[in-house]
Amino acid sequence: MGEYEHLLLTRDGDTVTITMNRPGRRNSLSGEHLGELLAAFREVAETDATGVVLAGAGPVFSAGHDFADVAARDLMEVRELLRLCTELMRTVQSVPQVVLARVHGLATAAGCQLVASCDLAVAGESAGFALPGGKGGWFCHTPAVPVARSVGRKRLMELALTGDAIDAVTALDWGLVNRVVPDGELDQAVADLLARATRGSRAGKALGKQTLYAQLDRPESDAYDIALEVMASASQLPGAREGMAAFLEKRTPSWPD
Amino acid sequence: MGEYEHLLLTRDGDTVTITMNRPGRRNSLSGEHLGELLAAFREVAETDATGVVLAGAGPVFSAGHDFADVAARDLMEVRELLRLCTELMRTVQSVPQVVLARVHGLATAAGCQLVASCDLAVAGESAGFALPGGKGGWFCHTPAVPVARSVGRKRLMELALTGDAIDAVTALDWGLVNRVVPDGELDQAVADLLARATRGSRAGKALGKQTLYAQLDRPESDAYDIALEVMASASQLPGAREGMAAFLEKRTPSWPD
Amino acid sequence: MGEYEHLLLTRDGDTVTITMNRPGRRNSLSGEHLGELLAAFREVAETDATGVVLAGAGPVFSAGHDFADVAARDLMEVRELLRLCTELMRTVQSVPQVVLARVHGLATAAGCQLVASCDLAVAGESAGFALPGGKGGWFCHTPAVPVARSVGRKRLMELALTGDAIDAVTALDWGLVNRVVPDGELDQAVADLLARATRGSRAGKALGKQTLYAQLDRPESDAYDIALEVMASASQLPGAREGMAAFLEKRTPSWPD
Repeated sequence: MGEYEHLLLTRDGDTVTITMNRPGRRNSLSGEHLGELLAAFREVAETDATGVVLAGAGPVFSAGHDFADVAARDLMEVRELLRLCTELMRTVQSVPQVVLARVHGLATAAGCQLVASCDLAVAGESAGFALPGGKGGWFCHTPAVPVARSVGRKRLMELALTGDAIDAVTALDWGLVNRVVPDGELDQAVADLLARATRGSRAGKALGKQTLYAQLDRPESDAYDIALEVMASASQLPGAREGMAAFLEKRTPSWPD
Repeated sequence: MGEYEHLLLTRDGDTVTITMNRPGRRNSLSGEHLGELLAAFREVAETDATGVVLAGAGPVFSAGHDFADVAARDLMEVRELLRLCTELMRTVQSVPQVVLARVHGLATAAGCQLVASCDLAVAGESAGFALPGGKGGWFCHTPAVPVARSVGRKRLMELALTGDAIDAVTALDWGLVNRVVPDGELDQAVADLLARATRGSRAGKALGKQTLYAQLDRPESDAYDIALEVMASASQLPGAREGMAAFLEKRTPSWPD
Repeated sequence: MGEYEHLLLTRDGDTVTITMNRPGRRNSLSGEHLGELLAAFREVAETDATGVVLAGAGPVFSAGHDFADVAARDLMEVRELLRLCTELMRTVQSVPQVVLARVHGLATAAGCQLVASCDLAVAGESAGFALPGGKGGWFCHTPAVPVARSVGRKRLMELALTGDAIDAVTALDWGLVNRVVPDGELDQAVADLLARATRGSRAGKALGKQTLYAQLDRPESDAYDIALEVMASASQLPGAREGMAAFLEKRTPSWPD
């Protein structure tokens, strides 16, 4: 894997772990840090890994944008920063791997946005989630985009307007994360869920993940227009043919990809 | 009612029960089975029944597409199968009756899609819900369309990526079903909820149901553009006039339709 | 504040309370009442208040449309009534203040729509929520628009088709309200949540609230197109600059607006 100043990348079997490693800055997302994260996801996308864990080193998952960086920027420079940040969020959803956020401690603002943008999320009991921009002067406009699409409207309003943090159990209840476990069991729970989520044909699952994001948030008839065509084509993929043949022959499939 | 090879249709009062009756094939949705379901819903739509129960005979509700059927099809033939399946889902939502899924045992893939596409669903405690395509080689692209619109994004991702089944209580918590009861009380719970859901003016309720699907998943202002015009017109329907008059005169309404 | 026949307006600090005051008509929303509510929200929008509480006097929050008013109208006159009602709902969302519904007793039909349209809602344990039009002859087409966007699809169908009321705890579970407290603690809970929701820069929060409604219900990429541009511009607002400076200098911000 490439060398990064602010990240640690490790590969274990089919899983790559990307660890945000600016603990002294609470993994805040400076322009440089965002650029490295984007590069890392693009690098991993080209590998044959099937899963990615996004984690944070130090006391928190990520504190969101780095105000030391933002405060020095004019309008067009902030716009570039936010375009980079948005491109990262889209890339997390477009890479062929299943991406799972491993959340301990606070995930705030763009850090919370990262959790909402990952396909799956497992939180330790220490985790907290907040959109504090509204109480801090700079409203969490873009973080609210994927958070709104995970929790209901009234809950989005509460997060964005109060800026208060919700705990891990509330995040589970609201559908922002998939699992909550004691912090000491976090790595095991992450590995377990990712193993379950990466079973099957790699090509079929990558196409599946990408198509889910394409059909979400649209009127149902538009979503069917997309999903139907992809599913018809996908039926002819080697993995789909093998999966169906193995099912009918009552044997374990041998994935061709 | 018409004669069907794979279905049982019975009428009791204002309710028609459509029972998928291929227990030996776990009510899997072959092209023939889908065609009969579509024909049955179209037949019932023309009657004066006010409610439809969709049920499955045998050990499960429905196992989804029939791989023996799919595996023999080329791309264009699979596409025709999926178009038929999607047309069935749309028809469930467009018939004037309230459609309630009575779910016992597993509802998987397109079987889970059927549950998500019905207006209401009551599950026995034995019920389970899964989108197993992702682990099986052929991703559940189209089943994910209505499931995504019932549960949150992270929960959709978990269902579609892991392929694991959730139990009935989890389905209730996530909003995929409306009631969970012991299997022995399933028929009674189905009848109770359907009776409550079919009260009032038949014409008004049919228009109401159909308009709900038209306004969902759209920006709120677009939804209002639809709902406002329909509601203004609906105020002049005989059932609406009678309902308001009865309310104002403190008497029981006599529905004209 | 202006004089209203059907409303009480009071100001306490930064909060204006608008109380629907037709208890003998269960705060039903006649054309005159709707017109006054719209005028009151527009009046408050011009003030420097940061929060609005919407409350109801008497036994219930609001019973929805006033059938005595509706029954006398022809199609075009009902249409005008619904346009006025929809304009009120939009105005609640477009005023710069945080709007919080204080719900005791029943909130039915357009009364439930009001709750769903407010940014936040706190319910007393006596509260109930219903869309009874479906069982009453005139389906709750427009009330279902914001309710559908707060609760899931199956829950919306249950509310709209059965017409049954859900209690406050169920409304909390489904995401229709933010808090449930004993009725005797309702005012304190309303004040507490509103205080938390109105912290920070007034201009930044107003822009934040308005942008949330602009990006909801859209495909994620469209939502980002909106949120990104607003957030970039908002970074240059005096409140945002002050908030970031105070954070970096570890001092309490002094909001310029």
